[in-house]
Amino acid sequence: MTQLKTANAKHTFQRVIIEHLAPEIDGGVFPIKRVPQEQVAVMADIYTEGHDSVNAVLLYRKLGEKAWKKLPMTSLGNDRWRADFVITEQSDHEYCIEAWVNHFETWQKDFKKRIEAGQDVTVDILIGINYLKHIVEQEKGKEVERIKSLLEEIQKASNSNQKQTLLLSAQLLSLTQATPDTASYVCYDKVLKVQVNSPKALLSSWYEFFPRSFGKNGKHGTFKDCEAILPEIARMGFDVIYLPPIHPIGTTHRKGKNNARVGGPNDPGSPWAIGGQGGGHKAIDARLGTMDDFHRFIKKANSLGLEVSIDIAYQCSPDHPYVKEHPEWFYQRPDGTIQYAENPPKKYEDVYPVNFYCSNSFELWQELKSIVDFWIDQGITIFRVDNPHTKPFAFWQWMIGETHKNHPEVVFLAEAFTRPNIMKQLGKVGFHQSYTYFTWRVSKAELIEYMTELTQTESREYFRPNFWPNTPDILPYHLQTGGRPAFISRLILAATLSSNYGLYGPAYELCVNTPVAGKEEYFDSEKYEIKQWNWNEPQNLKDIMTRINRIRKRNPALQTTWNVKFCDVNNDNLIAYYKKTDDSKNIILVIVNLDSANTQAGTVKLPLGQWGFAYDQSYKVVDLLTSDEYSWQGEWNFVELNPYKMPAHIFSVQQA
Amino acid sequence: MTQLKTANAKHTFQRVIIEHLAPEIDGGVFPIKRVPQEQVAVMADIYTEGHDSVNAVLLYRKLGEKAWKKLPMTSLGNDRWRADFVITEQSDHEYCIEAWVNHFETWQKDFKKRIEAGQDVTVDILIGINYLKHIVEQEKGKEVERIKSLLEEIQKASNSNQKQTLLLSAQLLSLTQATPDTASYVCYDKVLKVQVNSPKALLSSWYEFFPRSFGKNGKHGTFKDCEAILPEIARMGFDVIYLPPIHPIGTTHRKGKNNARVGGPNDPGSPWAIGGQGGGHKAIDARLGTMDDFHRFIKKANSLGLEVSIDIAYQCSPDHPYVKEHPEWFYQRPDGTIQYAENPPKKYEDVYPVNFYCSNSFELWQELKSIVDFWIDQGITIFRVDNPHTKPFAFWQWMIGETHKNHPEVVFLAEAFTRPNIMKQLGKVGFHQSYTYFTWRVSKAELIEYMTELTQTESREYFRPNFWPNTPDILPYHLQTGGRPAFISRLILAATLSSNYGLYGPAYELCVNTPVAGKEEYFDSEKYEIKQWNWNEPQNLKDIMTRINRIRKRNPALQTTWNVKFCDVNNDNLIAYYKKTDDSKNIILVIVNLDSANTQAGTVKLPLGQWGFAYDQSYKVVDLLTSDEYSWQGEWNFVELNPYKMPAHIFSVQQA
Repeated sequence: MTQLKTANAKHTFQRVIIEHLAPEIDGGVFPIKRVPQEQVAVMADIYTEGHDSVNAVLLYRKLGEKAWKKLPMTSLGNDRWRADFVITEQSDHEYCIEAWVNHFETWQKDFKKRIEAGQDVTVDILIGINYLKHIVEQEKGKEVERIKSLLEEIQKASNSNQKQTLLLSAQLLSLTQATPDTASYVCYDKVLKVQVNSPKALLSSWYEFFPRSFGKNGKHGTFKDCEAILPEIARMGFDVIYLPPIHPIGTTHRKGKNNARVGGPNDPGSPWAIGGQGGGHKAIDARLGTMDDFHRFIKKANSLGLEVSIDIAYQCSPDHPYVKEHPEWFYQRPDGTIQYAENPPKKYEDVYPVNFYCSNSFELWQELKSIVDFWIDQGITIFRVDNPHTKPFAFWQWMIGETHKNHPEVVFLAEAFTRPNIMKQLGKVGFHQSYTYFTWRVSKAELIEYMTELTQTESREYFRPNFWPNTPDILPYHLQTGGRPAFISRLILAATLSSNYGLYGPAYELCVNTPVAGKEEYFDSEKYEIKQWNWNEPQNLKDIMTRINRIRKRNPALQTTWNVKFCDVNNDNLIAYYKKTDDSKNIILVIVNLDSANTQAGTVKLPLGQWGFAYDQSYKVVDLLTSDEYSWQGEWNFVELNPYKMPAHIFSVQQA
Repeated sequence: MTQLKTANAKHTFQRVIIEHLAPEIDGGVFPIKRVPQEQVAVMADIYTEGHDSVNAVLLYRKLGEKAWKKLPMTSLGNDRWRADFVITEQSDHEYCIEAWVNHFETWQKDFKKRIEAGQDVTVDILIGINYLKHIVEQEKGKEVERIKSLLEEIQKASNSNQKQTLLLSAQLLSLTQATPDTASYVCYDKVLKVQVNSPKALLSSWYEFFPRSFGKNGKHGTFKDCEAILPEIARMGFDVIYLPPIHPIGTTHRKGKNNARVGGPNDPGSPWAIGGQGGGHKAIDARLGTMDDFHRFIKKANSLGLEVSIDIAYQCSPDHPYVKEHPEWFYQRPDGTIQYAENPPKKYEDVYPVNFYCSNSFELWQELKSIVDFWIDQGITIFRVDNPHTKPFAFWQWMIGETHKNHPEVVFLAEAFTRPNIMKQLGKVGFHQSYTYFTWRVSKAELIEYMTELTQTESREYFRPNFWPNTPDILPYHLQTGGRPAFISRLILAATLSSNYGLYGPAYELCVNTPVAGKEEYFDSEKYEIKQWNWNEPQNLKDIMTRINRIRKRNPALQTTWNVKFCDVNNDNLIAYYKKTDDSKNIILVIVNLDSANTQAGTVKLPLGQWGFAYDQSYKVVDLLTSDEYSWQGEWNFVELNPYKMPAHIFSVQQA
């Protein structure tokens, strides 16, 4: 069998090509991200010259394990191969591909053709036997033992017909497919990583609020006050509460109402002007309470199924202890002052940015990381990070990477509404969730294009969207003008397009929509003043929010972002999409009227084939928002949505 | 200026990201390919965190040169940068990108905004000066010297207004842009290669013929006989003549007419059954003449502007000297025979494939390479390689790579009509030209899709198409049924879509179209018998071939494949496309009727904007095939093509 020997020490080379492996981020420099129960679909072009058969195997294992799990890959045609594995536990994984030429398989394929053509196969039988002998002599493993005994059976067979039948057996083929051919064996040149995060990284409903606005009788709110509102937030179905910075606020250059450059004596200051007499990033604003109060608050939240997320804003007020202790951590100006934050010509005199490139940056970075460590010790596992795009990527990669090693449960959300490459890079270097452009994607074409980019391109592997219809910084134009219908439709879009979503309340559920003239900013912003919210004003959206969050909880189809598919509708004001579980047991069809002022109607085309529905049978759609039921039939169905009643359907689609 | 210092030995990191560099083939494993005068457009995403300005430079040089040439890259928006360089000589090149943060540029950008906003800039002037001081202290080079003197001028300036004007100067900015900032300097992590080939690799017109069919009075033709037909081939405008194997042909299992398994005593044999009494791959079939005759033939061809290409077919007839000398180079069967070529159930008993994986493969590979070396020594610089897809990629990479080192002028054409990945891989590992699926792309949609794949995807960097409407192996169905109009239209498509094209003549110019029933093969194929061609039969296409090749020679727009663009036509039987030079001085518009049986008419939309034509002015189109002239105006123009007259227009478009 000289044709099988390549083992010339002077002269070896790679025979099987494995290329265009996906997913692989930047040549394997960055891991892909998953949460438990998610699948990794691995594909590659795998082939050799000529018409020889190739076998390919996907290898995967938990990081640190010795043994690889192995899955045979399947040919998709055109030399593309695929195998999928499911992450079953919250541990990082790695994967690779191995492949080789299966000479016996090539031989068997040809052998069948020879027999079909009625050729004399006497010598071919001997060749087939030789291939098996070669395997038995060269390779090892329990499959080889079974090949050995089948080989003996073939050799003992009394006639050529019997030998032929045995040689053609599918069992024999599959045994050889499980036995790599040493001579042509090749392994992909990189082992690729899967970072596995907490389930919360993929599925979360965020409720942001300012604790200081929940005091009694106009007083500065405390964590104790806030304990009282937690049951209501839990009842609405949110599972993450996110608090703007809870640290002492500086008094120097403290801003007044509506971002006035000079505040009055009673102005509470912006929570992002961190640090004062009471301490810095590891302290709590005394007006909110004590560390004990905060611990009790966290405990209460947790008992209601809520996780508490705090804000990591690496910047300091002029009164922050760091400014005195480490002036070198800030930008020194030639006049001896420290540079405050600016976006020329805008000035933020109440905030000093940190200089990540300072002369003792090593100490600075360690200190900044210790802030996160400190809050993890207090029971925080979710961090919303302010303006990460203005800090070095290398810092995040190091800080989040180190944190992941010791606390794989921790989730970081990047607040970065900036250039697409920068947002993606923050995802690559470690952020588990990211704010997105959803806030400004309004038309049907924009929404479809953006969802396609998020779910169908490589960024899907490392960039997890979190959809926010508003934030304390952003009151988008469509909410300013669209009234309550716009607040409802944007909420439904956020909560059903993305499995991670959040909103800044109670401004959202009360449909607050007065802007600073001409800007996408709130007038009388809560960032600079204490509010008194009456949650039960008549326009409140609490009921609809509760229903939407309940729908998300009850329908696994809505618990991922990656499965969204759009449907044709013959009206550009109506957007329709569905999400379904792999087994099609849960199918959710969402249709939203994007026109907040007018009733819109149209016919929607449903992918019955994708759902496994017969084209001639009726099926049931149940609107989970209204409990209305309809019996539909065929691909095209009529819908009509009056935004003042309800701007959307969220249908559960059920085979009749 | 602490903010500029990152030089903490314990703590350095990459600040500027350079990613998604293109062109880059498989992480730089394979070079891109160019010929002299072609451009390399290099693009990458380049950015840093925040809003700091980044400068990027493309570096390139001839392989072996020490100094890099440098070109500033231009921002295309969205963090994408680009710079182009032109290959000016036939030497391999390499390229890379460097980038850094330009703190002065960031400062100047902000400074302008401050001034526009009427802010006090006293301290900002000092900061700008400090940035310049830092450059002068830290960096080197003639630009730094000029920055130094400008800095002195600024410092001497008597008032703040003067300083301001000097600091805002574009000259100062551009000097800083030419001075990399050492602290943030980063270089792309790979140096990428450009393999530069002979101009023939991009532009060639091939004429394939069997020399033995040009004997006098039915006798076996000789090189001497063929010298007589060279002027006619040259007159038709071809520049490469390609000869099927010219070596001794085996007699054992020699095939008869129409691939009959047993040939008669007078059958000449298939030229691909290489090797016999007279020698192997380095010998010449005595019936064709002597080596001296061949040398004379080459000389005659060269004197007419023709290059001679021979066929490299690594396979042997049973009578090849290798079979006796090196039986281990072939596949041994258990019955002691050597395995002949097969594609079960088809058998090619007159040919033994070579076993590239044999026990002494090192010696075999050396010997196979020596065949190429031998023919290079005889004056051959173009090789058409038979069935390369059945031989190891590693062999081609080594063999073509070694040949390229010593003979960069040599061109290898891959005859591989196989799976797309395999064809592409052959291009990656070294082949300079490749046969394509053009032979089977017939409809307008198929042609547009295929041209888009060839010219607009990454394969454009390493896979150079060569379009063949027929070969001795392939008489496609559309030529069997389409008559003379089909032969003309396919010729025009091949010669104008691709700058490399070829045909198997005289079967082509005589419109020979009798197939083996039901197959895409020639009946009475010249592969198995000697033909007597009468070039001057009335249906001959010599005149149209001559015109087409002359059009290709005179119009630089047709001398590349990469510039093709398609135009809308409101008739699916008409395909329209144009090619133009970068300066738009040469614009060729081709419109082909793909229906060989009927006149087709339609209106074609011309990209006047792309051509720099006014929409309201008339322009001239001259049909280079017929010399007919038309005056056109506006975007949409009517065309009508009668396939029996001429199935295509090849217009030269000229501004009036």
